[in-house]
Parts: sequence; C-alpha cells; structure tokens
Amino acid sequence: MRTPLSEQLGIEHAVFGFTPFPAVAAAITRAGGLGVLGAVRYGEAEALAKDLDWMDAQCGGLPYGVDVVMPAKKVEGVTVEQVEAMIPEGHRAFVREQLARHGVPELPEGQRGGWRITGWMEEVARSHVDVALEHPIKLLASALGSPPPDVIQRAHEAGVLVAALAGSARHAERHAAAGIDIVVAQGHEAGGHTGEIGTMVLVPEIAAAVDPLPVLAAGGIGTGPQVAAGLALGAQGVWLGSVWLTVAESEMTSPVLRRKLLAAGSGDTVRSRSLTGKPARQLRTEWTEVWDGAESPGTLPMPLQGLLVADALSRIQTYETPELIGTPVGQIVGQMNEVRPVAAVMDELTRGFEQAVARLNHIARKGEQG
Amino acid sequence: MRTPLSEQLGIEHAVFGFTPFPAVAAAITRAGGLGVLGAVRYGEAEALAKDLDWMDAQCGGLPYGVDVVMPAKKVEGVTVEQVEAMIPEGHRAFVREQLARHGVPELPEGQRGGWRITGWMEEVARSHVDVALEHPIKLLASALGSPPPDVIQRAHEAGVLVAALAGSARHAERHAAAGIDIVVAQGHEAGGHTGEIGTMVLVPEIAAAVDPLPVLAAGGIGTGPQVAAGLALGAQGVWLGSVWLTVAESEMTSPVLRRKLLAAGSGDTVRSRSLTGKPARQLRTEWTEVWDGAESPGTLPMPLQGLLVADALSRIQTYETPELIGTPVGQIVGQMNEVRPVAAVMDELTRGFEQAVARLNHIARKGEQG
Repeated sequence: MRTPLSEQLGIEHAVFGFTPFPAVAAAITRAGGLGVLGAVRYGEAEALAKDLDWMDAQCGGLPYGVDVVMPAKKVEGVTVEQVEAMIPEGHRAFVREQLARHGVPELPEGQRGGWRITGWMEEVARSHVDVALEHPIKLLASALGSPPPDVIQRAHEAGVLVAALAGSARHAERHAAAGIDIVVAQGHEAGGHTGEIGTMVLVPEIAAAVDPLPVLAAGGIGTGPQVAAGLALGAQGVWLGSVWLTVAESEMTSPVLRRKLLAAGSGDTVRSRSLTGKPARQLRTEWTEVWDGAESPGTLPMPLQGLLVADALSRIQTYETPELIGTPVGQIVGQMNEVRPVAAVMDELTRGFEQAVARLNHIARKGEQG
Repeated sequence: MRTPLSEQLGIEHAVFGFTPFPAVAAAITRAGGLGVLGAVRYGEAEALAKDLDWMDAQCGGLPYGVDVVMPAKKVEGVTVEQVEAMIPEGHRAFVREQLARHGVPELPEGQRGGWRITGWMEEVARSHVDVALEHPIKLLASALGSPPPDVIQRAHEAGVLVAALAGSARHAERHAAAGIDIVVAQGHEAGGHTGEIGTMVLVPEIAAAVDPLPVLAAGGIGTGPQVAAGLALGAQGVWLGSVWLTVAESEMTSPVLRRKLLAAGSGDTVRSRSLTGKPARQLRTEWTEVWDGAESPGTLPMPLQGLLVADALSRIQTYETPELIGTPVGQIVGQMNEVRPVAAVMDELTRGFEQAVARLNHIARKGEQG
C-alpha cells in the first residue's frame, strides 16, 4: 500500500496511526505504518523525552512521528492560574454536584492523574516540540490549527514533514497557506475534535482545495475496506486513531473503559463540548449527557472548559466510575469488538485493502465485458 | 460497473438515482443506471400514473423504480383534518409571524403549490403503490420504515424488488426481518431523513448486519471517487439523490433555489426537524435557523410538523423568498457547482470510478513490488 507520500517517508504501508501510547506507536511503526505519538497527555517534557528515547530503541530506525497541540490563538504571558480564575463559580459547583451525585471520591493529596490540561498550553506544547525535534522524528502533526511559523520552519530545517488536521476545506487552505506539508482531512465520524462534514465529502473536497499537497483520510477508518474507501477518495494515506485504543499493546489503564469500548456500538458516541469547550467526539456517558441536559450551565470556551473538568476527569478515570468514564473515540468504535495486537490490526488493514481493491476490479471489469 | 444486484436488475451501472422528477428519473435509466421516481410530492395518484406512463415511453423498456413514503406507524381511520386539529395554536402563530416578518405573500385563493404533505398519509402512499405496481417497475423503495407486509408481498408477486432506507444496523435488521430485498445504508452526510452515523462507518456495518442481502451506499456520493469508496465499503451499488437536483433535466421551478444549490458549500446544510418533525438534512436557511433558535416553540412530531409548515413552504417556494427557500440536500451540495445533463453526470461517475480503481491498483501494486 504505497503512495508518493509513503515512499517519501520510507514506510511500507500508507497507514498513519495516532496514539497516546509509546508502545502502540512503536508497534505501528514496526508493522510498516507510521506511528504518531500524541504529546498532549505529557505535562512534563522530560516524560515525553524519556518515552521517545524508548521508542527510538524499539523502532530500530524506522520512521515515527509526534503530535502536538498548539493553540490556535496565541495568548502571551497568561498563566494557568490566571485562566483558572476566569471560570465561574456556578460551573465549579455544577462539576462538584455531578461528582457527588455519583459518589466519585477525591484524589489522594498531591495526586493528579490521567489527562492533563497543561498539555494544551502553548509553553508546554513548545517544550514538546523541542523534545520531539531532538529525536529522529519524520513527522510533526498538529491537532488544532497550524503550528506557529517558527515551529514549521524548525521542523523543515530538521527534514521533518508537518501535518495538520482540518475539518473543512477553508481550514485546510489556511494550513496550506501556513506552509504545512500534509493535511489530515478529518470527518465528522472521527474521535476527538471534529467538524460537521462527513469523511466521504470532506476528503475529496480538501484534496481539491490543497492540491498538490498530500491529504490523509481520517474519520470512520478502522478496517481494510475503509482504508480502500479513504484512498479511493483521493487521499495519499489514512490516519487512524480510535482503532488503536483497544489493541493488546494499549496502555489504557482502566479495564472498565476498555470493556465499554469493546461493547460500544457506532451510535454510542457523541460530539460534545464538555471535554475541551470545542466539539469533540467521545463515548456517550452520563457525564456528556448531563452537560447537554436541561440543568447544564453550558460549556465554557476552550481552554476554560478543559481546566474546569481536568481534576473531575482524573477522579472519574482513577476510580473508574462506570457510568461517567469515557474517552475520545470515533464512530468506528462499533467495529472495535476484540483485543488484538497492532500487527494483527495492520495485517487486516492491508489484506482487507487488497480484497476491497480486488472486489472493485471485479465490479469494473464486468463493465468492460458487458 | 456491475454487481450481482445490477445484473439481477438488468442495468449497466450499479447507480441508483432517486429524484422527484420524471424527466430526471428517465434520463438516469436511459444513461444506464436505475432511475427511482419519488412519489411523495404527488398528492393525487392520477398525476403519478400520468408521469409513470410518460416514463414508460421514455425508458423504452429499461428498468426504473418508484419510491414511496409509507408511515412507520399505521394510524387507522384518521383524517388530515383530525391531525391538523392536534397542532397547537402557538405553533401556527409562530409560522405566521415568520412569514410576515419576511413579507411572504399569501397564495392566491384555491392554489396550493409545491411540496404536499398528503403524500405522507398511508392512504395516499397506498394509492401510489397501486399505481406503481400497474407499471413495469423493477424496484419499489421506501424512505421511512419497511412497507407493510401486504405491500412487500404484492411487490414480490409482481417480480419487483423492495428497497428500504436505513440509518443504523438495527434499523437495517428490522428491514431484513420484514422481508426487504435491498437495504439503502444512508449516512449522516445524506440529504433528507438521515441519522448520526457517517457513510464510511454505516455501510460496512449494515452490510455485515444484513448479509447476504445487497446494500446500496448512500450519503455523500456524487462523484466517481465517491462511487468507488461506497463500493469499496462492501455495497453492491450506490444510491444518489442530491446530485440530480441541479441537472439540466431537473424540473425544479425556482431559479433562486437552483442558484442557492450551485453556490452552497458542504457546510451549508443542516439536519433539522423543521421540515417533517424528524431530522432531515437540507439547505441551511433563515427558516431552519429560526426553528433551532431561542424564540422557537420547538418542532412537532411527525406528521404534525409537516402539516404545520406545508402551506408556509408552498408560499416560500412560490414566491422564492431568497433567505427562506431551501430543499432537502446532502453535504455533496458543495460539489454541485454547475448544471450538467444527467448523461454527463453518469459519465463522470463511471469514468471517475474507473480512474479511482486504477489509482487503487497503482497503490496496491506498488506494495507487491516493494
């Protein structure tokens, strides 16, 4: 499964795998794809550096990438504490009330686990970029907006391609104007921050808008036929995130969450602002439902919402409150029904792609004979 | 572009074209696809019969189909007048207020134009079925729920295949249990009544759920690469509706609406309950916006909402109120930018499909050599 982009990057299959877990990213790379490690959960750059060192040892020189979250709008000299002070007390009370209603315990003194909002702050994201560029990465991806010009320039000087996610053609055109090398066209079906336009419509629209830049198809892709569909739409590769959450190498610590993911159907996700303030697709839980419900005070704009709920989500994750625990995930969750090693997933993706192409040839050839 | 289903139906290309216009349906059939005429806009069965007679003459024995809307729940012996009486006065006042605000004139005495709600009533739908089965149709499609068992039986006795639209695997399984022959898997991107699940996820999910029944991919399909993607997902054909709205043969009477469709981007649609009471994707207009706005009384359940707005929509269509006029259409509207004859659209679909397959072969073959 090779395209000009996969050949430029030196990977066997044009499959890009986004994951927050180093063991999964390394396994994707070893299986012939390009593993992309999400840096946002790393509060400390040192922890990211340590995991990238480990990945270097695991990948044996095969290419991998890092995904950072650079804020779309730069806010100079504002501290986390100053931003925290902007959160209305009514919203804090609403969060406390929900946790109390479900009996979610407090975290032990000094412990703050799980997803850290600090990864969203530009100073932290910049420290992630510094660490990433000290490693032999081949791709630097940005999940929210184009990275600042100096970051793009530094990446290019290091021979690193820069990718950015887009949910609309206009968004993609801004990336192209900013000097991005690859646009990830992420459809409505996708997990995490995602727009209104379905993958089927978005991929060709963005491919036309940024031509000749290469586009990766994202959203609703987790099997070989979906890979074939994404590539049929004009993409030079596919970008998969959700499907790796339930692989054997996943370092997801909660058995409750893993069981929920394996059991969920494609209709069990929701695009909710409750996680970050921007619409992000995730498992539908009583937590997401209450934020959309009649008693909700409404979500706050990014980054306030993320700061508001950071500790609450840590508590829910730590104590695995079954009805509240969730995670960003796409509609493909309905097809994630068993735990498999990354290599088995990659094998299905490539074989399933080949079978889908064989089937299309059969459909096309019959027409010639007819 | 042939599949077992297209061969069973005797069509050259596995392209199913839904349209409210006989001239468009006939042109789709003549171009090698299967034109499916939507019956819902026909208040009188006689008018449908006349148009089907005309289509028979146009199609020269090539196969075509008819799409009826059979209500999901049967309501015995209820008249339109009785249903009208269930509409709250506050809702009627809201409709009057919106029309007055935009200066939409009253219709002349006795004239009721445009889209008629009566097509949604079971007695009317049954008269459509009677007329359709008196013609040499090859396909009877149902847009909302499975048709009643006696209708399915009559169709089968006449050698007519029955298709039904589904927005979820569960929905599709109910169709299969009811004896349907073909399931149209219609994704979130589609125009008209549509669910939450994107085409990329929905098609393989439904294909697996109803196997070995054939599935048509619908939603976000309007170009050759999208046809290839839909077929790659396991469909035996594609079902297109929106793309025919702007063809040269379209009998759409409003130049204002046609211009709006040609100018609209993929982000200019909205899933709104304002048309029928169930979520239906359509052009976003000030009319859809006000129903979702703060002053809205909320939409009514089907069929009340449709009855409530029927005359208002006729007035808006008749007088072409630019900011209010709209139509059901999918996100593919962003790629509908010029008026072309049906034959040119079909030519692009089939050539574009072949080019996409050639491209996929190139991607797959490179892998073999590598």
